[in-house]
Amino acid sequence: MPDSHEITAAESGAFVRMLKIEPTESGPLDGLCFVVKDLIDVQGYVTGCGNPDWAKSHSPAVVNAVCLDRLLAAGATCIGKAVCDELAFSLDGENFFYGTPLNPRAPDRVPGGSSSGSASAVACGLADFALGTDTGGSVRVPAGNCGIYGMRPSHGFISVAGVMPFAPTFDTVGILAYTIDALTKVAESLLSFPVPTRTSVGTIYVFQEIMTLCDAEVQQAFSELLQSIREFLGCKVQGTSIREIDREVSDAGLTPWFDTFCTLQWAEIWSSLGSWVEARRPAFGPRTQNNFELTRNLDRRKIEPANRRREDYRRRLNAFLGPDNILCLPTTPTPAPEKGTLEDKARSPGSLSSYYPRTLSLTSIAGIGRLPQVTLPLGNVRGVPVGLSLVAAYGRDAFLLSVARSVARCWT
Amino acid sequence: MPDSHEITAAESGAFVRMLKIEPTESGPLDGLCFVVKDLIDVQGYVTGCGNPDWAKSHSPAVVNAVCLDRLLAAGATCIGKAVCDELAFSLDGENFFYGTPLNPRAPDRVPGGSSSGSASAVACGLADFALGTDTGGSVRVPAGNCGIYGMRPSHGFISVAGVMPFAPTFDTVGILAYTIDALTKVAESLLSFPVPTRTSVGTIYVFQEIMTLCDAEVQQAFSELLQSIREFLGCKVQGTSIREIDREVSDAGLTPWFDTFCTLQWAEIWSSLGSWVEARRPAFGPRTQNNFELTRNLDRRKIEPANRRREDYRRRLNAFLGPDNILCLPTTPTPAPEKGTLEDKARSPGSLSSYYPRTLSLTSIAGIGRLPQVTLPLGNVRGVPVGLSLVAAYGRDAFLLSVARSVARCWT
Repeated sequence: MPDSHEITAAESGAFVRMLKIEPTESGPLDGLCFVVKDLIDVQGYVTGCGNPDWAKSHSPAVVNAVCLDRLLAAGATCIGKAVCDELAFSLDGENFFYGTPLNPRAPDRVPGGSSSGSASAVACGLADFALGTDTGGSVRVPAGNCGIYGMRPSHGFISVAGVMPFAPTFDTVGILAYTIDALTKVAESLLSFPVPTRTSVGTIYVFQEIMTLCDAEVQQAFSELLQSIREFLGCKVQGTSIREIDREVSDAGLTPWFDTFCTLQWAEIWSSLGSWVEARRPAFGPRTQNNFELTRNLDRRKIEPANRRREDYRRRLNAFLGPDNILCLPTTPTPAPEKGTLEDKARSPGSLSSYYPRTLSLTSIAGIGRLPQVTLPLGNVRGVPVGLSLVAAYGRDAFLLSVARSVARCWT
Repeated sequence: MPDSHEITAAESGAFVRMLKIEPTESGPLDGLCFVVKDLIDVQGYVTGCGNPDWAKSHSPAVVNAVCLDRLLAAGATCIGKAVCDELAFSLDGENFFYGTPLNPRAPDRVPGGSSSGSASAVACGLADFALGTDTGGSVRVPAGNCGIYGMRPSHGFISVAGVMPFAPTFDTVGILAYTIDALTKVAESLLSFPVPTRTSVGTIYVFQEIMTLCDAEVQQAFSELLQSIREFLGCKVQGTSIREIDREVSDAGLTPWFDTFCTLQWAEIWSSLGSWVEARRPAFGPRTQNNFELTRNLDRRKIEPANRRREDYRRRLNAFLGPDNILCLPTTPTPAPEKGTLEDKARSPGSLSSYYPRTLSLTSIAGIGRLPQVTLPLGNVRGVPVGLSLVAAYGRDAFLLSVARSVARCWT
């Protein structure tokens, strides 16, 4: 727990509810406290999922989510349920009903979502770490925005039992943490492996198509970080093109990745939540309403070709990365947007100049590949945090965390 | 579609409802018809999940499950929703409310579950193939019992969006088919890869601990099949021990695998369904009632060590199999039990002499390893079918299907 509590829980706006669930056993997480996104079941409480009608139409959880039980068995103390975006369907961090948790590093900016309260509670020093969920970036983006560490594990490696299903082939339970040591320890507990103390990195790759999507200032900050990492790790850093993965659409850059991700995600979201939405007719905030319209009206003939592309990309990405290479990228193409600026026009799915397509183009890579990604709070643009992300091949979570720890030590 | 329709749909008892959903496009599955387990959403119909109270308390699906849409886009015609065991929580195929679908190869025996109607409809020649789900064996066991082909894919490779969540880290959508060609074509459509026409197999392994769990007659039939496969494929067949994977519990055989599987599966089932069960207090058949008592009363301190074992086994299994080896085993340790004999005493979790522990010991290997498994209808014991199963490393589904096709051709 960080020492200085200058921000109170009430000021953070990060909590749906504060509580105290003592650990069930002593273990490697003794003394650490955490919050869980309100998409993750806590026994005896309704899992609200960021929407009042969801909360009203669901019973209290009769048992903790599997991931929560594992943290309690590893010695950690749960201190609250954290605010999230409505039904996890956003990267904003501005909940129409429950407000906008504080981004303490940039109070005029959004914290990012959908694990907004999880990121805020950690960044405000109110918890050592947090559980979030990451389908399209919902751990990585708020961790990057709020200047903390975040991890999306390999798909399926942390149980989603007791977590609201959203887009199951992309859904993951992720971790947000104040320090790299806390991130590592929590990941070791949830993923059941030890992180090696040292490891050898092959090549660190940077895709030029990702860089061209980023703000000039983000590119600049990223390049400086990369130079330090190269010197510190003594490994090869190589610029390359997404064409190495996707040879057929050489001129389209990341657009087919973004399209593939959105098509499959929207199809899965509507399969998971459509029946409830249609039966209940819940009140949504305007952006959530708009998002569900997109999923409802998806041309389902796009699903089959999107899935073929996804599996093709997935195989090629994993072969490209191999056991010991790393893809390095800015977590987001731009620092956190200012509050209240994420209007519908900024969300236009058709334009790669707007916030969502640009951001999802970067985050979709790990999602499509089922790959683990760690974001580190190393960059900033005029004081506003921007994360630096590392991606490894499927199942190489321990290797990735070991590399992330080495990289973090460049700066500490 | 097989030519001879000697058994009617009514006689099969396999259907919850017959219907006709035309393909949305023409494709590789043109002319094939299929049924879907009633755990998989079909737009406009309530997904009943084998329990009348579930059906009453859920709204009609507003959209097809993603896997169903993909089959329709590949040219196949859906002809019905198939009976399944209550909430998928059984390998019996005897549904207290909806009866026991016919096992046409052994009419006095259970078809197996939980994808009972899916297996029955295919085995009765009423559909070319079927969608089922397989968490602990619910595709493989009924396919084996009914003498048809079945596949559990690598975990996560076929979308479970629009499918009832049960034990998410084990849940898969699987395929049951009358011919190996139909199985292959459907898998290519759902998994988005081509199956190579020929492939080279490294070593086929057989675990002695699996063999000792099988009936003597099953061992005998399996050994004869294995001899033919060795001659036909010209590859090495090697007996070995589960100690190669699990060095620490050398004398316990498959018991820790069975325990690990049950602990994690029960924990996940209660996380997924416990709230509904407690809020709704549904009427269950006596065996289902008993199963939910087991999950409710699980000692949750067992989850954390079970998960460590699972991840350890998973890594070792995948390393052992590598890209081109195969594990070969009987799909079940015994032919399908006679109807009405699966009483509670046969289900005792404590004794490896009873049906469930023996069967789950075999099926848990692919579940724990997230591995693909294909069952082929090649064996029988005095005319009652027993499947022969092949298991490959994670993600090696195309290789596995190619090997399965070669093996199937030994007999045709």
